[in-house]
Amino acid sequence: MAVRADLNISLDGIASPSDQSPENPMGEDWPRLVAEYTATRTFRNRVLGDTSGEGTTGMDDDYGRAYFEEVGAEIMGAAMFGLHAHPDDPDWQGWWGDEPPFHVPVFVLTHTPRRSLEMAGGTTFHFLEATPQEALARAREVAGGKDIRIGGGLDVVQQFLRAGLIDRLHLAVVPIILESGGRIWDGLRGIENDYDSSAEVAESGVIHLTFTRR
Amino acid sequence: MAVRADLNISLDGIASPSDQSPENPMGEDWPRLVAEYTATRTFRNRVLGDTSGEGTTGMDDDYGRAYFEEVGAEIMGAAMFGLHAHPDDPDWQGWWGDEPPFHVPVFVLTHTPRRSLEMAGGTTFHFLEATPQEALARAREVAGGKDIRIGGGLDVVQQFLRAGLIDRLHLAVVPIILESGGRIWDGLRGIENDYDSSAEVAESGVIHLTFTRR
Repeated sequence: MAVRADLNISLDGIASPSDQSPENPMGEDWPRLVAEYTATRTFRNRVLGDTSGEGTTGMDDDYGRAYFEEVGAEIMGAAMFGLHAHPDDPDWQGWWGDEPPFHVPVFVLTHTPRRSLEMAGGTTFHFLEATPQEALARAREVAGGKDIRIGGGLDVVQQFLRAGLIDRLHLAVVPIILESGGRIWDGLRGIENDYDSSAEVAESGVIHLTFTRR
Repeated sequence: MAVRADLNISLDGIASPSDQSPENPMGEDWPRLVAEYTATRTFRNRVLGDTSGEGTTGMDDDYGRAYFEEVGAEIMGAAMFGLHAHPDDPDWQGWWGDEPPFHVPVFVLTHTPRRSLEMAGGTTFHFLEATPQEALARAREVAGGKDIRIGGGLDVVQQFLRAGLIDRLHLAVVPIILESGGRIWDGLRGIENDYDSSAEVAESGVIHLTFTRR
């Protein structure tokens, strides 16, 4: 029962680009950071519901598939659910659609908890104000012995990393330089003392880097 | 006749660690950054003069060997020669020993030029105050059609990169996080638009990343 996290980062470590604007709310950097992942067959099928079988296969897809395997519960930040998009609408169901791709209990960390949301396909969103340790304890109760995924965003993954709670961190390093935004490495000096690392390069050029706790 | 540069960097892009102190003038981070390179048979032979044949072989050594091949002239910063170590001693010959490992003309960029130094083994140090373009023109005159290596340090490589003068940049990415020091990526946003990149992972875990100008 491992606690896992996956992030896409640029070569310079940016996981959370900061080039959003009112005219371009997603920014231009984010789509480039996830381009190889969103092109995979697994992403198209699991997240977009595309059953055509289209999408790339190979190493990027292997990691994409592993992302969804053996997960019993997920923990994510409020922004990842979309809570900040409609803060005053108690009926807002996030931006993951009617049948979110999680299919497990999802714990959304927020300072303004609301009632749980049961969605189609086995995803239930629970909203809680909790420390990483407390959230993890809640997730363990319902994960049925499977892995717990820290779904993001960057700040949530970093909180769990700094608290020493992540067993396996997978970083898909995209060979672009972004410079502005939140950087995964900040505060992680010496992480190599606690984790083994390995790397392999996908056909797309993405470097898959995995840290596994010793 | 390519203009080339090679640097060792940490996962977070630090090429020039800043943990030196009077008690530990080299710092602890620098040896870790170059550990896999200095362990190679090529480094031991070419730089240390060790003819025992000891040292690692494999991909790190392949890159180490390529570093010395087909170079007709080198350009380096004053600190890399060691000019700052004894600024007032006109007879100081740098810290590369009696027979430096370059065996070609080396142009040392400095604001305080001095007379050229002819060393054993074909290395001649020339000291000049010049822009990257001017230094490159001087190096081309004597390189006999071979490659010109920008030997470092980080600031010199960045000057040449930002001036668009580097044809091939090889980065040996060591899987450690350092956080403090000079970062290769600063100012390089969008480099992927002008360069193709490729990566491969050595037996040691070092990721060899190569940018080649389109």
